[in-house]
Amino acid sequence: MTTDPHPDQPRRRPVFFVSDHTGISAQVLGQALLSRFNGLQFRKVTEPFVSSDEKAAEIVAEIDATGEREGIRPIVFMTITNPQRAAQVQRAHALVIDLFGSFTPALEAELGLKATPEVGRFHGVVDQYSYKQRIDAVNFAMSTDDGLHTGSYENADVILVGVSRSGKTPTCLYLALHNGIEAANYPLTREDLETEELPETLRRFRAKLFGLTIDPVRLQQIRTERRPDSRYSALATCEREVHQAEALFRRYRIPHINTSTFSVEEIAAHVMDRMSLEEH
Amino acid sequence: MTTDPHPDQPRRRPVFFVSDHTGISAQVLGQALLSRFNGLQFRKVTEPFVSSDEKAAEIVAEIDATGEREGIRPIVFMTITNPQRAAQVQRAHALVIDLFGSFTPALEAELGLKATPEVGRFHGVVDQYSYKQRIDAVNFAMSTDDGLHTGSYENADVILVGVSRSGKTPTCLYLALHNGIEAANYPLTREDLETEELPETLRRFRAKLFGLTIDPVRLQQIRTERRPDSRYSALATCEREVHQAEALFRRYRIPHINTSTFSVEEIAAHVMDRMSLEEH
Repeated sequence: MTTDPHPDQPRRRPVFFVSDHTGISAQVLGQALLSRFNGLQFRKVTEPFVSSDEKAAEIVAEIDATGEREGIRPIVFMTITNPQRAAQVQRAHALVIDLFGSFTPALEAELGLKATPEVGRFHGVVDQYSYKQRIDAVNFAMSTDDGLHTGSYENADVILVGVSRSGKTPTCLYLALHNGIEAANYPLTREDLETEELPETLRRFRAKLFGLTIDPVRLQQIRTERRPDSRYSALATCEREVHQAEALFRRYRIPHINTSTFSVEEIAAHVMDRMSLEEH
Repeated sequence: MTTDPHPDQPRRRPVFFVSDHTGISAQVLGQALLSRFNGLQFRKVTEPFVSSDEKAAEIVAEIDATGEREGIRPIVFMTITNPQRAAQVQRAHALVIDLFGSFTPALEAELGLKATPEVGRFHGVVDQYSYKQRIDAVNFAMSTDDGLHTGSYENADVILVGVSRSGKTPTCLYLALHNGIEAANYPLTREDLETEELPETLRRFRAKLFGLTIDPVRLQQIRTERRPDSRYSALATCEREVHQAEALFRRYRIPHINTSTFSVEEIAAHVMDRMSLEEH
């Protein structure tokens, strides 16, 4: 008998990300494809490092059992390099989307070269450089977080400015980890905002500044979780600080975006685009 | 005339990631596909937020001009939701790989629903929860970095342990940003290692511990950049610390991996897999 563990919720279609490596490519593209089906709910399972025929057989059995138990055909996003093993997963009773097999033949023809049958190694000479750059960028973001070590701004690729809890820290870390960008962040404090002037520390670096702003109501929610019933989290404070910060961005022509409805990835992509930053 | 700006280097095929959104899906899957062509070099350009016909026309002109100037056909990885605009980019003189168009019809048939013509919004109710979880996890990782606030270990999903510079901090931040995992990290110091015992602080949390180790020569390189000619960066120190840390992992049966040849993404995926952590 099929029992739904959440009878009050709409049934969630099972989705598997199956990979002989981390599964990150399958997750990222699979989620982007699924995000276009509004209102549907999915239950997602990642199966990484499927690198033997035995492991592949296990996963196929799990997919089939899930489909049978839940009475609904699973969807599988697959990045498996070995063609025989990919064919094995294709035999699951599921909609199997083969993200490598679908494009590898066209790329092989274009590049005049056979793709390696194993997982691509990301650590050639070039990538070792880029790996180091990312780790250095993470260290930079950590050491200049929240207005620390402003003396390092000389080396920053970008300096995010905004009121407390507008999303600066996660964005800096994302830019560092993913793009190797040295991103510092400076919180606009009440004292800074009341002068209506760009803080002295930032003036020399105007070309590197990017502003993050946020809807005051959203800011209030976020701040309330940290410090409920405080002046810091009061709606009036949030409204005033956001208003003053936005006025500052306009006066000094600092490019800025409202982070309220964006994910960290989206904010980071906007910063890269608007500041013409290139991945390191 | 075609001139190669780097005549000494092998010619690098131009690759464009073209998207009406961030371009991250196109980058991640495109790079995974290209990583399987060993020895080839690519010059990568991301064109995000291509959300008008004019912008699409500009990008097509840029792709065509690049191909003509460099005398080599570009490769384009495209995630564009609007079918007319996708068709417009398809007309570029390039190998255009359509990551949405290739799979959307099969998904529509399976799900019995038309995909929205716009970019998927990642901020439904569920994703607002997951967004908050990620931001909280980033705050957790920052506040417990490098052995700080061990009093919060009660709330940790995982605690990474390893010698200084074995890759703990970037891995914790990646786990937080991408998976919403609350990951702390604790550096094994010389004092810790010489006792040959698990530090008192960690003993209660043995089930949450995951060890990172690293090749001593690689560790020496990393440490030398930070503190050249120090005892900290001496090969003998690196060898001894790594040896002691690995002995500790074995004695206390702490699962661990050697990070030397892995990217941060790969290390994070191994931690998720081995510790059976589920994305929040």
